[in-house]
Amino acid sequence: MGKLNVPLPGRAYEIQIEHGILKQAGDLCRKVLPKARKLALVTDHHVEPLYGNMVRQSLKKAGFSVHTTIIPAGEASKSMTQLEHLYEEFMAFELTRTDAVVALGGGVVGDLAGFAAATILRGVDLIQIPTTLLAQVDSSVGGKVAVDLPAGKNLVGAFWQPKLVLMDPACLNTLSDAVFYDGMAEVLKYGCIKDSDFFRLLMDCGGRQGVMKRIEEVLYTCCSMKAEVVRMDERDTGLRMLLNFGHTLGHAYEQAYHYETYTHGQAVAAGMVAAAELGERLSITPAGTSERIRAAVRCYELPERIDCPMEAYQNTIGLDKKGAGLEINMILLEQLGRAKIVKLEKQRLFALLGEIYGS
Amino acid sequence: MGKLNVPLPGRAYEIQIEHGILKQAGDLCRKVLPKARKLALVTDHHVEPLYGNMVRQSLKKAGFSVHTTIIPAGEASKSMTQLEHLYEEFMAFELTRTDAVVALGGGVVGDLAGFAAATILRGVDLIQIPTTLLAQVDSSVGGKVAVDLPAGKNLVGAFWQPKLVLMDPACLNTLSDAVFYDGMAEVLKYGCIKDSDFFRLLMDCGGRQGVMKRIEEVLYTCCSMKAEVVRMDERDTGLRMLLNFGHTLGHAYEQAYHYETYTHGQAVAAGMVAAAELGERLSITPAGTSERIRAAVRCYELPERIDCPMEAYQNTIGLDKKGAGLEINMILLEQLGRAKIVKLEKQRLFALLGEIYGS
Repeated sequence: MGKLNVPLPGRAYEIQIEHGILKQAGDLCRKVLPKARKLALVTDHHVEPLYGNMVRQSLKKAGFSVHTTIIPAGEASKSMTQLEHLYEEFMAFELTRTDAVVALGGGVVGDLAGFAAATILRGVDLIQIPTTLLAQVDSSVGGKVAVDLPAGKNLVGAFWQPKLVLMDPACLNTLSDAVFYDGMAEVLKYGCIKDSDFFRLLMDCGGRQGVMKRIEEVLYTCCSMKAEVVRMDERDTGLRMLLNFGHTLGHAYEQAYHYETYTHGQAVAAGMVAAAELGERLSITPAGTSERIRAAVRCYELPERIDCPMEAYQNTIGLDKKGAGLEINMILLEQLGRAKIVKLEKQRLFALLGEIYGS
Repeated sequence: MGKLNVPLPGRAYEIQIEHGILKQAGDLCRKVLPKARKLALVTDHHVEPLYGNMVRQSLKKAGFSVHTTIIPAGEASKSMTQLEHLYEEFMAFELTRTDAVVALGGGVVGDLAGFAAATILRGVDLIQIPTTLLAQVDSSVGGKVAVDLPAGKNLVGAFWQPKLVLMDPACLNTLSDAVFYDGMAEVLKYGCIKDSDFFRLLMDCGGRQGVMKRIEEVLYTCCSMKAEVVRMDERDTGLRMLLNFGHTLGHAYEQAYHYETYTHGQAVAAGMVAAAELGERLSITPAGTSERIRAAVRCYELPERIDCPMEAYQNTIGLDKKGAGLEINMILLEQLGRAKIVKLEKQRLFALLGEIYGS
């Protein structure tokens, strides 16, 4: 159904959203990679048995020589160790600067393989084929790629735009409810920060089934909003921060529970509710907004609140990349569908969180 | 003496060449880093005792908080292991996106610290303070940063332009003859590919002492030629390849002797002579050119020939990043002072090398 252009100067690329598009991966890749002979396909143990053969066959039919590296599924693979492993595999495959890397999977595969593509031989082309909702609406678009360090998530990375993004909505049918709803937090976020009509549409959908009936529209809307923000601020020095709505507090929740108890989406959902409450208390966000977000979050089986000790807030926000120094940039809502960046003293933020949550 | 502007769109920066400039490092960094609070200084065991305190004091005086990481001197430090070590140090220092990395040392320090700067927090500002001749005329200018893999040198990297490059010619006085002459190969290269007058000047200098009498002019000339090439082809997809004159064969020599017997400069020197001979045999380079380069190379105590088995050529050139497929781009001289890219079948190249060297 949808073709979406991300018009970055010199590195414009298309996002293609279509049922069954994985089977056409070879021809579509060939169009954007006329000179490539080799493709290093990176995927994980969950995705390989579902889509590995289909994608490989299509790529080979288009004349590419393909080498597959399968990484363990899960965030632990976004490590320096797996990165080195990919480098070794790419070199053993004798990848050259005119060849490319294909990331087939969720956010972990996209981030890790994307960062490897950004840095091997000082950068080779990258094709993103996201298979989870979270990867489709968020991590595969915009060029942020990264690996984790023991000191924190995504601390090492680059901005490396893909040459092409292929999304097959059919992939979402194989996701568990938990993984599907994990992605819905980011979908709701777009409604909160940019488009109140879209927010209402998501409320009307009422759950996974309802969303899947309109999935191409949902993916298209999210990706076009993200592409627009990325176009205006590729390197995340201003406007792109709006995409962090719910994320500053969300990161604190994730870290407080050692990334084990709550998924990213769950943490962001509770973070959006809390950010709306903060905004209401600061008279920036209209009263009742947090209640509407709460209802939406419930509707997609996401938590509306996560308890978090004050030290966890302080630990995360002290180190948070978004805020250097004594102040932090918080993303708050002027109204449902419109976000803005608000500079807040960290001490003030901690005091407000204490008031709201009485900790 | 010299200020040189590298006018890359959106990332223009200055190269400043001046006797005693290290003492002004703090003020000069402050000018280009108005918001930075922290500087992660990276240097090695050789350079730290010579210039570490001087630079640190100057930086601290300008209001920066400085953390120093000292790596072992030598190519072995351009590794994934040292890279991870730098990442850990930066995070323990709580570096933020508005802070910067300062690379004080030769090419290894510049490449490693530069790549760490390019990738930590998806990229922070970088200041290059090169202290060897090779780093001053070559690796600190142009934004190429990298680490090595077991499979080869510079296989992982990025293009990451510095915010400022500071060169103190006085640093060169502390180099051994071997390290000084190592850098002279790249200096001679600029004469070969871009400027026959400069080539003659270097012949007139006749050796280290003569060069040091005109060192600011020599540094300025080399850096301005490199800056010009980089401006026109930052990402090394065309013109910038001219800077590889002598390097394709040079890499083969380095690898044949496991990077132990010959320095980079020694290998490049012999590679330039061989490339001139190749060019003469192909009637691209005027007869007698290789003889003139041979004389220059001797004058700076560099080898005019390195024996290399055919398999070593084949191994290196088969994997060489500059040549994908059956052909390779060789840099040859149309005349002394003017280089061009010549597409050559690899088989043809090997046959010619066999003729010239009878192996």
